[in-house]
Amino acid sequence: MNVLIVFAHPERESFNGGLADVAKESLQAAGHTVELDDLYREGFDPVERAGHYAERVDGNYFAPLTEQRAHFERGSLAPEVQREISRLEWADLVIFQFPLWWHAQPAILKGWFERVLVYGGLYSGSRRYNRGHFQDKKAMCSVTTGSPEQAFMPFGRAGNMVEWLWPMHSSLYYVGFDVLAPQVSYGIQGGGIRYQDESVFREQLEQNKTAWAERLPGLFSEASIPFTGWNDWDENGVLKQTHPMRWRP
Amino acid sequence: MNVLIVFAHPERESFNGGLADVAKESLQAAGHTVELDDLYREGFDPVERAGHYAERVDGNYFAPLTEQRAHFERGSLAPEVQREISRLEWADLVIFQFPLWWHAQPAILKGWFERVLVYGGLYSGSRRYNRGHFQDKKAMCSVTTGSPEQAFMPFGRAGNMVEWLWPMHSSLYYVGFDVLAPQVSYGIQGGGIRYQDESVFREQLEQNKTAWAERLPGLFSEASIPFTGWNDWDENGVLKQTHPMRWRP
Repeated sequence: MNVLIVFAHPERESFNGGLADVAKESLQAAGHTVELDDLYREGFDPVERAGHYAERVDGNYFAPLTEQRAHFERGSLAPEVQREISRLEWADLVIFQFPLWWHAQPAILKGWFERVLVYGGLYSGSRRYNRGHFQDKKAMCSVTTGSPEQAFMPFGRAGNMVEWLWPMHSSLYYVGFDVLAPQVSYGIQGGGIRYQDESVFREQLEQNKTAWAERLPGLFSEASIPFTGWNDWDENGVLKQTHPMRWRP
Repeated sequence: MNVLIVFAHPERESFNGGLADVAKESLQAAGHTVELDDLYREGFDPVERAGHYAERVDGNYFAPLTEQRAHFERGSLAPEVQREISRLEWADLVIFQFPLWWHAQPAILKGWFERVLVYGGLYSGSRRYNRGHFQDKKAMCSVTTGSPEQAFMPFGRAGNMVEWLWPMHSSLYYVGFDVLAPQVSYGIQGGGIRYQDESVFREQLEQNKTAWAERLPGLFSEASIPFTGWNDWDENGVLKQTHPMRWRP
């Protein structure tokens, strides 16, 4: 299988970089082909703006979706966007490796969604969600946190990881990916607040790498996260009256 | 009072721009001082990277929080970061005006958190959450969506707005802001998917502007969104056994 690792950390030698290496080595050893897509090293510009579109449909008013659709159809998207789309078309599985910064993926990866997942090309009308463009592919997050795992208990200090990743998981599902459960490496202290002494911290890094290495070979046979889909919604996008989840407030 | 509007849309003439104008005019008419902070027009770079730090603590390994703390203490943060911090110190209320892109704020605004809310300067140790730096100030989101309101019903097609804004709300609370309920303008079609005919759409734009204008004068007397805080957590950041919310799974 083909695996794309989208890596979003400014320091290649960071623990995030180490987890990307673990994934690459482990998956290659299992016979897969792996490409590492280092957004920082490639200088990816995450800001969706008029300047990315050479000959605009409307030169006076910048409507991102209008320009995305037109430039996709003309084959005139920015080269880095075309390259990212080609990588996605090639991949069977996409792993996003990043630190949780301000309760979400780093800006360089947030803007990757805004620029790369182009309207008209990778989604439109009913070609979304479980009928989305990438519906035969899998995607997942491998994420590190500064705070320790205990603080992520329900209503705890650091909040709930299911909630922090829900927007990104939903964006991946929006374009059709089957989303696998995230790999979360807690308590990775990247130079700031320190919760533990150095030896406990070092040991934890190794435990996280080992846990990830052990999970990787089985990824392709894992069940994906369930979402509601086209058959669950009425024509207005509202959950059908008959759906069992309508009991919830 | 002093109000800062942080505006994150690439087109000044967009409906988002119109809502920013409504806020500015309405608040000025009520006697407040308002500054519009246009991230796109100012060319804000949302990517946190080594190049923003002139003389690094460690030139071989880039640890963002280490550099943020050191450069804050030395007064050598990038000029645009210093300017944003000054604006926040000046403001009594910060309104973030942006479109919901891929289930969150646009990358230019996501990276604003990463670069501007500097470790050591605006948070550290126990100076977070309800003991945070900005605990005497208010903040809120004014957000537009492409999908219509019905699709945002629980488990509906477009998901739940409480969930989409929860990461950003939590980030604001992390640095001490009292977070007001968001102003959500649904069904604003920025050049892409169209759900309604043109006349319904135009009417809806006006309704959204009117609703916002009517709410604005009372903002300073609104109650803020409740969060758990230092008195609710034990020393590990876990919700105390005695806390009433421990009944939840």
